[in-house]
Amino acid sequence: MTIQSPPGDNETMNTASLVFQTDFGTGDGAVSAMYGVANSIDPTLRIFDLTHDIPQYNVWEASYRLIQTVQFWPAGTVFVSVVDPGVGSDRKSVAVKTKTGHIIITPDNGTVTHVHRWLGITEARLINEMKTRLPHSERSHTFHGRDVYAYVGAKIASGQLSFEQTGPVHPQEDLVMLPVAKAFREKDTIHGQIDVLDVRFGSLWTNVPLDLFAELDIPYGQRVEVEIRNDTRAVYQNFLVYARSFADANVGESLVYVNSLHNMAVAINQGSFAHAYNIGTGSTWKIQLRKAPKLVYE
Amino acid sequence: MTIQSPPGDNETMNTASLVFQTDFGTGDGAVSAMYGVANSIDPTLRIFDLTHDIPQYNVWEASYRLIQTVQFWPAGTVFVSVVDPGVGSDRKSVAVKTKTGHIIITPDNGTVTHVHRWLGITEARLINEMKTRLPHSERSHTFHGRDVYAYVGAKIASGQLSFEQTGPVHPQEDLVMLPVAKAFREKDTIHGQIDVLDVRFGSLWTNVPLDLFAELDIPYGQRVEVEIRNDTRAVYQNFLVYARSFADANVGESLVYVNSLHNMAVAINQGSFAHAYNIGTGSTWKIQLRKAPKLVYE
Amino acid sequence: MTIQSPPGDNETMNTASLVFQTDFGTGDGAVSAMYGVANSIDPTLRIFDLTHDIPQYNVWEASYRLIQTVQFWPAGTVFVSVVDPGVGSDRKSVAVKTKTGHIIITPDNGTVTHVHRWLGITEARLINEMKTRLPHSERSHTFHGRDVYAYVGAKIASGQLSFEQTGPVHPQEDLVMLPVAKAFREKDTIHGQIDVLDVRFGSLWTNVPLDLFAELDIPYGQRVEVEIRNDTRAVYQNFLVYARSFADANVGESLVYVNSLHNMAVAINQGSFAHAYNIGTGSTWKIQLRKAPKLVYE
Repeated sequence: MTIQSPPGDNETMNTASLVFQTDFGTGDGAVSAMYGVANSIDPTLRIFDLTHDIPQYNVWEASYRLIQTVQFWPAGTVFVSVVDPGVGSDRKSVAVKTKTGHIIITPDNGTVTHVHRWLGITEARLINEMKTRLPHSERSHTFHGRDVYAYVGAKIASGQLSFEQTGPVHPQEDLVMLPVAKAFREKDTIHGQIDVLDVRFGSLWTNVPLDLFAELDIPYGQRVEVEIRNDTRAVYQNFLVYARSFADANVGESLVYVNSLHNMAVAINQGSFAHAYNIGTGSTWKIQLRKAPKLVYE
Repeated sequence: MTIQSPPGDNETMNTASLVFQTDFGTGDGAVSAMYGVANSIDPTLRIFDLTHDIPQYNVWEASYRLIQTVQFWPAGTVFVSVVDPGVGSDRKSVAVKTKTGHIIITPDNGTVTHVHRWLGITEARLINEMKTRLPHSERSHTFHGRDVYAYVGAKIASGQLSFEQTGPVHPQEDLVMLPVAKAFREKDTIHGQIDVLDVRFGSLWTNVPLDLFAELDIPYGQRVEVEIRNDTRAVYQNFLVYARSFADANVGESLVYVNSLHNMAVAINQGSFAHAYNIGTGSTWKIQLRKAPKLVYE
Repeated sequence: MTIQSPPGDNETMNTASLVFQTDFGTGDGAVSAMYGVANSIDPTLRIFDLTHDIPQYNVWEASYRLIQTVQFWPAGTVFVSVVDPGVGSDRKSVAVKTKTGHIIITPDNGTVTHVHRWLGITEARLINEMKTRLPHSERSHTFHGRDVYAYVGAKIASGQLSFEQTGPVHPQEDLVMLPVAKAFREKDTIHGQIDVLDVRFGSLWTNVPLDLFAELDIPYGQRVEVEIRNDTRAVYQNFLVYARSFADANVGESLVYVNSLHNMAVAINQGSFAHAYNIGTGSTWKIQLRKAPKLVYE
């Protein structure tokens, strides 16, 4: 089935890359089967990976990794994100278009939360999983990544199916969204949470934007008082240097810095802050930042 | 050396993708050296990965991952699979063509066992490792993945070497095959084995095809008595729900389901069955399935 | 900004592949953001991975993995290697051209040590990180992999920026080099060090070239006395067979062999030598090889 996309859309659509994200890992054949399906639809498709190491069923992290990457890809790029604890339930499948012109194909389970909030969504479409799927895959009920999402993503990226043809309009307000806590300032203290880790290096990425932190008026090289709590438990409290980059801290020294998404982050230079203090992520992991008091030695 | 492939074959051959599978991991430069060799032969080649995390020397799993993926790729795709405990021995190197039109380049050590059994092989050719290899690689005896298999695979995928030109016909009955146990029904009980794991999620994939299981006439939602033995040891026995998909079981509940290759599988919804009960794979891991007795509470 | 490269260079440059190496891992979105930047510069670029699992901050290993792979890629291939403990410091960023016609974009921190020594460098250029970088990335000081290196690499690989246009000539003698110990023979003993591991298989790769080892005049099948020391501590001493390949040793037997870079290596057939004896790499890990004495049983 080759559906012609409407004239005018063709140019963009025909050069679109397809980017896969899953929690499948790459240790078995699951991801490669998805690649195979996409290649079978169009053997000239350009296919890439975001990551396949999203912790299993962690929709929040899937949502976060999209906001970490989508904006750096060309408009028109089609993302397929499959972290799908509800496969086989009545959860919906959607195609979503962002204000930046990117397309995301995903189970409707909160995966587009961050993209919605920071990039904005212009339109969502409902995918009919029974109709728009790999032919002859009807007996398989547990691998929509291969049978539905890779299939639909490749159809769109190759220009064989337009975004509009994926299904009827789905009201944006019906899209499932995860709760997102907004950081805020109360007097001289900023209250935020630890959203996610820089996985390999163990740095903490908070939800405190640089612009909010700037209200504290702390210059580079000065100290920030950092307090981390998990529920009712105080986990960490110390005075850390506010560094322009890791090179401004000694090896092994902790620092506060601005990460690559312009949010505040906490790290140990060449160490793992998360490992050092057993720190996790999510809504129970709160962080407070304020200007450190002057230390006067008498 | 650019050998023209016979006219008529050209079109298919020139657009063939090349797919690599190894047990090398991606932590060092081995896989990238293979990519380099392929790119040097044809810088327009489309190269993809099946997986590089086959457990070391595990030919069985290499064979299984091929059957999990090959059929989803377009006909003509060239697979290079290098799990090669016998590198440097007198084990043969072969090129194999399946009934589905896929080509597999591999040491002849059992890697094509599942493909042979489920897809069927139409022809095998013997590769002369001394002649058909990366020029000037003769002093290297330990990395045929780079020097022989990536080289031959890229030559074929790029259309510079036809399948027939890889070497003389190798009798199919001489291909090395691993023993494959077939599941069978004895009265009301199906006897099978645990073939492989869904690596990331820890589900057990058995060799019991859905069609055989269907003879037990158990409807979705009813219970299956599952018994798992390792050699003489009983490892697990319980009554599990037969679920259409994970969503039909509670979180943390165990279930029997049909996997993406239409075989029976056992899992814990959002948990790891393999970790929970320390279950492995292979011919010593037997599984029995039968209709669960009605439980009558008095 | 599209800069035309000088005529004559165009053909090679326009078909160049881009190869990424980092210590970022692929567990989050960092590598995919680099891919996105490169795709945004040229959506037809061919992008590949060397590895993203260099141990964090391990510049030595980054340098080694380049020599393991670069030479197998076509001339003109552009490598971007980002192991960058000094990001944000005054360490330089450079573009380097090898005698083999490969290009490497990297922080100037020793990453080109092995390439310099074994392939040779014809020219280095200094990259102005403030000027030649992803537009609007100026507020980000911690992710030069995305903002500088992927950007510059993609500009070159796509032919939008010539090697010469990356910046002024940087004197080769100013390039940062790591100390490299050369293996040598003293009478009947060769003294070397363990440079790196074959990660997945745990084999030891030494800095002893085959040509030097050949001076010992040990034929295949004869025994080599191997002694490994870490600083002052003797770690291992034994008589190992000199095998043409793993197949010439029994399963579980240790052997000396020639690795895929024509250096001497030590392994356990189907086991991990590094794990078995807790052996590491670097300048404190010394190895001695000599012809084993004849064992006479009386």
